Amino acid sequence: INNEKKLKPDDCVRGNIPRPNLTFTLCFLKTMVNQVQRMDGGSQAPKSDSSGASNSGGESSKESSRCSTPLLDADRADRLREKMKRRIESGDRWFSLEFFPPRTSSGAVNLISRFDRMGSGGPLFIDITWHPAGDPGSDKETSSMMIASTAVNYCGLESVLHLTCCNQTKDQITAHLAKAKRLGLKNIMALRGDPLADVWEEEECGFNYATDLVKHIRWEFGDYFDICVAGYPTGHPEAESYEADLKYLKEKVDAGADFVITQLFFRAETFLKFVKDCRAVGITCPILPGIFPIQGYQSLRQLVKLSKLEVPEAMMQVIEPIKDNDAAIRNYGIQQAVDMCKVLLQSGDVPGLHFYTLNREVATMEVLKQLGLWNEDPRRPLPWAVSAHPKRKVEDVRPIFWASRPKSYIYRTQEWDEFPNGRWGNSSSPAFGELNDYYLFYLKSKSSKEALVKMWGEELMSEESVFEVFTNYITTQPNRNGHKVMCLPWNDDPLAPETNLLKGELEKVNRRGVLTINSQPNINGKPSSDPIVGWGPPGGYVFQKAYLEFFTSSENVTALLKVLKKYEPRVNYHIVNVQGKNITNAPEMQPNAVTWGIFPGREIVQPTVVDPVSFMYWKDEAFGLWIEQWAKLYEDESPSRMIIQYIHDNYYLVNLVDNDFPLENCLWQVIDDMFDLLDAPPVTVE
Amino acid sequence: INNEKKLKPDDCVRGNIPRPNLTFTLCFLKTMVNQVQRMDGGSQAPKSDSSGASNSGGESSKESSRCSTPLLDADRADRLREKMKRRIESGDRWFSLEFFPPRTSSGAVNLISRFDRMGSGGPLFIDITWHPAGDPGSDKETSSMMIASTAVNYCGLESVLHLTCCNQTKDQITAHLAKAKRLGLKNIMALRGDPLADVWEEEECGFNYATDLVKHIRWEFGDYFDICVAGYPTGHPEAESYEADLKYLKEKVDAGADFVITQLFFRAETFLKFVKDCRAVGITCPILPGIFPIQGYQSLRQLVKLSKLEVPEAMMQVIEPIKDNDAAIRNYGIQQAVDMCKVLLQSGDVPGLHFYTLNREVATMEVLKQLGLWNEDPRRPLPWAVSAHPKRKVEDVRPIFWASRPKSYIYRTQEWDEFPNGRWGNSSSPAFGELNDYYLFYLKSKSSKEALVKMWGEELMSEESVFEVFTNYITTQPNRNGHKVMCLPWNDDPLAPETNLLKGELEKVNRRGVLTINSQPNINGKPSSDPIVGWGPPGGYVFQKAYLEFFTSSENVTALLKVLKKYEPRVNYHIVNVQGKNITNAPEMQPNAVTWGIFPGREIVQPTVVDPVSFMYWKDEAFGLWIEQWAKLYEDESPSRMIIQYIHDNYYLVNLVDNDFPLENCLWQVIDDMFDLLDAPPVTVE
Repeated sequence: INNEKKLKPDDCVRGNIPRPNLTFTLCFLKTMVNQVQRMDGGSQAPKSDSSGASNSGGESSKESSRCSTPLLDADRADRLREKMKRRIESGDRWFSLEFFPPRTSSGAVNLISRFDRMGSGGPLFIDITWHPAGDPGSDKETSSMMIASTAVNYCGLESVLHLTCCNQTKDQITAHLAKAKRLGLKNIMALRGDPLADVWEEEECGFNYATDLVKHIRWEFGDYFDICVAGYPTGHPEAESYEADLKYLKEKVDAGADFVITQLFFRAETFLKFVKDCRAVGITCPILPGIFPIQGYQSLRQLVKLSKLEVPEAMMQVIEPIKDNDAAIRNYGIQQAVDMCKVLLQSGDVPGLHFYTLNREVATMEVLKQLGLWNEDPRRPLPWAVSAHPKRKVEDVRPIFWASRPKSYIYRTQEWDEFPNGRWGNSSSPAFGELNDYYLFYLKSKSSKEALVKMWGEELMSEESVFEVFTNYITTQPNRNGHKVMCLPWNDDPLAPETNLLKGELEKVNRRGVLTINSQPNINGKPSSDPIVGWGPPGGYVFQKAYLEFFTSSENVTALLKVLKKYEPRVNYHIVNVQGKNITNAPEMQPNAVTWGIFPGREIVQPTVVDPVSFMYWKDEAFGLWIEQWAKLYEDESPSRMIIQYIHDNYYLVNLVDNDFPLENCLWQVIDDMFDLLDAPPVTVE
Repeated sequence: INNEKKLKPDDCVRGNIPRPNLTFTLCFLKTMVNQVQRMDGGSQAPKSDSSGASNSGGESSKESSRCSTPLLDADRADRLREKMKRRIESGDRWFSLEFFPPRTSSGAVNLISRFDRMGSGGPLFIDITWHPAGDPGSDKETSSMMIASTAVNYCGLESVLHLTCCNQTKDQITAHLAKAKRLGLKNIMALRGDPLADVWEEEECGFNYATDLVKHIRWEFGDYFDICVAGYPTGHPEAESYEADLKYLKEKVDAGADFVITQLFFRAETFLKFVKDCRAVGITCPILPGIFPIQGYQSLRQLVKLSKLEVPEAMMQVIEPIKDNDAAIRNYGIQQAVDMCKVLLQSGDVPGLHFYTLNREVATMEVLKQLGLWNEDPRRPLPWAVSAHPKRKVEDVRPIFWASRPKSYIYRTQEWDEFPNGRWGNSSSPAFGELNDYYLFYLKSKSSKEALVKMWGEELMSEESVFEVFTNYITTQPNRNGHKVMCLPWNDDPLAPETNLLKGELEKVNRRGVLTINSQPNINGKPSSDPIVGWGPPGGYVFQKAYLEFFTSSENVTALLKVLKKYEPRVNYHIVNVQGKNITNAPEMQPNAVTWGIFPGREIVQPTVVDPVSFMYWKDEAFGLWIEQWAKLYEDESPSRMIIQYIHDNYYLVNLVDNDFPLENCLWQVIDDMFDLLDAPPVTVE
């Protein structure tokens, strides 16, 4: 890409007419849905930025690595424009989702949880809007920068960060871009943004147009970022003309933009004509239609008034009669969007659809489902939730311990410059970061303190009360007070479908104080397309060794150790207490692969291991969660708190692997044997 | 180890009495069996020394490597003294074998082949004697240095190189040791050697005793080498006294020796008393009895005369009456050795037995079998023949193509500084060395040119004559002239037991011109202890994808390519001709793992891959063998030679992998389909 093109004369003489853009319209939409951006400056600044994620991109990391990773998922390694290119070539349609940053700290927690849910439908990317008034480049948990970074790093979503340039210095812009790069962001939506004054005044030597910003990004960062720009299918109401707008778009693309997302519109023909006109003036990059499912009458009216978009007469005739019926309006909005999208997709000119979600799920998901674009059964590239940070694109193995806390694992390894991509547990691996930051919004429980107390008990009477909480979590039965236990400190979600296969046995052992926090069944070669345990590309076979991890009392551990002698060398174990006393039969502290896959034409992939070294780091976190997430719900010195403290101080954390994966899982028998030994009259214990 | 101990005064005053050692006696023994060392200076010097194998030991290589190898076999990584220590602790007895260097080039080929056969019985180590008159440190293929290097590098045997010091300068000694280290040798048997003159004259500032040599090795090379010294159970006949000899041995051990091997003896009590006396003077290291099974009357008599060893009266009484019956003497010798060894082993003072083989197999193997020490079913640490070079101790993956030519693979990768131990085919891997050195004794066929012509045909009439040779090799039926085809240019041994599983199908396809040179059946989780396909530590499971590699005509390839479309993506293929035209469906040229193992408490091991990059190097070798090993048996311009040349120029080398290892191997069906297509009337071909 040639970044050295000089500004053309007409860049400077375009005059004072404001060129509103997407930011303008969306900001307005948000006002309507009562989500105006107001910054609450009091929230704690998350530390994750100070982490200074390595500057080295995934590419260099891959090259410097001694062992190349078998590339299971080309999408994971490619940059956004290449993903688009591949999809266009293969004819696979995609969708993308636009969100705006939250207003509050709890809004941030909710949005991240929404990313996880909507991410499961398989968007090609999401984008996060940028509002200069909202301190969008800061380290606040509500900033655009932090939300986009979280989406990439912790939700594994390919993300586009909006960036506006008006009223900003070059240095400010460069600082934002450098920070975005440092955080692992690879895509920028380059926008002019709205002027502070009512009348647009061109600044000398500043950024007056999105074109200037595109040029600046290419000049300063070369080809690092993929760049998106905005298109206006109806021409902007305040633009000189539709043709002038097309010319400006052409300039933006020529300056180095990779694709275009359009402002919303109400008729497929509007967009299709726009694409035709773009092609006619030589714009060849992908142009994605911005889809806005109507969600209410008042919001539509205000949109029409402020954005000067024209709602077609035919639509108004349907809407007016039902204007007081919110549900009817929503249903109409969904149907209208579906119909329009169908026309767009059938045209052959639309490779993907971009949705203005307004941070809501229902309408967009419904439209996508009706279009058949929502991925009901998302393929898992690996058995754990991947991160989209460039340097983690080669990551292909993790310890199993963090299976239910992938964000915590990512957080604790964010300082690593290179990911152990051949094997895990190399002694030269950097250490794990401390987990003292339980409050970070992307690590926090989705449930409030009040909800947690209801689930885990207003008042604990004994250790058995704790057993009951674990049991209720497994069975999904309401507790004594009628509340379902939807999460535990170690699992913020209900049991995974795979773990559900073990539900009966898990219930039985939890009832007796084997407090399970992590487990997987053995799998002897199921197809990689299996809906429950499958992962990786099609045509492969996946395998697992049975795994069980639990807290239990020292009395139980004493019996367990006697029992385990009978299971040598079939069962590997690590047993550790909070002080770090460690009992294991792992040979030379090597990692034990417990999940692996065999694929056509590939090397073997072993994405999950039981690694003795990292278990010691996990141990601190797993014991810490008793106190940080549970004990602290209760008053100091209260009986409830003392019970949790007692468990924390005296229980052991145990993990067991049954190496004989082709045979029936023997770990339940191990636990049974332990209880039998405990139940036996003392004389027979010896 | 403290190497800075000064020479003690008595080191210099021990006087002029010669202290004969093992070298002396063995040299004599060899004279008796007509194997005196005479150097034929005319043989071509092998190039392998000029390769300059990396100076970095296995340890440093392991540390610098990004991905650690799962340690499957502790024995493979440990140094000899540690292996001994572990065996002593576990109570596992071992044996070791002594050989002397061959006299001729063909003797060298035979000895290497003997190493392979005797190595399969599981010796803890072998040792190679050193005879100053025989240019033992040279690059000649008959030198002790080259034979020991070949044993280590190409036969995978832990080897001890003898080294004598008398009449040599310090610099000469150091040069020998440096060369040994460079070649991957880790163990030295430090001996004085025999004086050139009849009367022993002490040299000033030279090496007069083995003790001096031990000190020198420790001084110059620190702890790099494991050092063995000789012990004399009956005291040396020319020594001042038995007690003086014990004292000298104590000095040798104190100087830094790790273990002792004794001169031969005829009664268990002799040795057991010797061990007791050694312990009494403070010699604590392992002491291995030297066992010499009597193999003939004359040799025994001469031995007695020259070495002044006393044959017990009771033995002579048995031997004298049968002295003219060679077979009876041999049988007696075996029985005598077995009886004596049983007493030794039962004493509890003998951790391992050292055999003076005189380069013969039968007697020693028979003794070992009767003692139950010969490993009838050797465990394979990996599915291919490992090298014992320190830098290759971490090697854990190889391309399958060299499965039948492991020595050639080792030769072609000898320049590599580090072994790809996580994955294979990394683009930063150094290239393969050229294979122009077909004449090297350790790469040569065991069969003579005459034998090869008999097997492969005095005169070839057509391509079909060649098909017949391949078919006869598979079936082991004699050819038209009554000769069994025991080898092919690509396989110097009969079919492996594993390949034998495919015998029926192989015969069928070879008969029709699918000339197979490499194959393996699919295996879906057999125990690692399986006698045919098992490898690695016990308690594991091994897997394979079916593999087939063959030469075939371009007509066949045309049909094959049509057929293969039906088998996408189940079957991966690489099809290449001698010019390098390459047709493949391998995704992104990644390696395909075709052999892997799952073991208790370990990561996954994938020791064999089909690697697209190395296939191009193998291709040159595989095509080259047609000419170098087969065509060159015939006169220039002869029809036989032209037929082979035609095949070389026009056939393709094909490899096929069936990725669906849990299903029945479909590769035979692929070949059948190809023949069906070829047999079909032309109209149906389209």
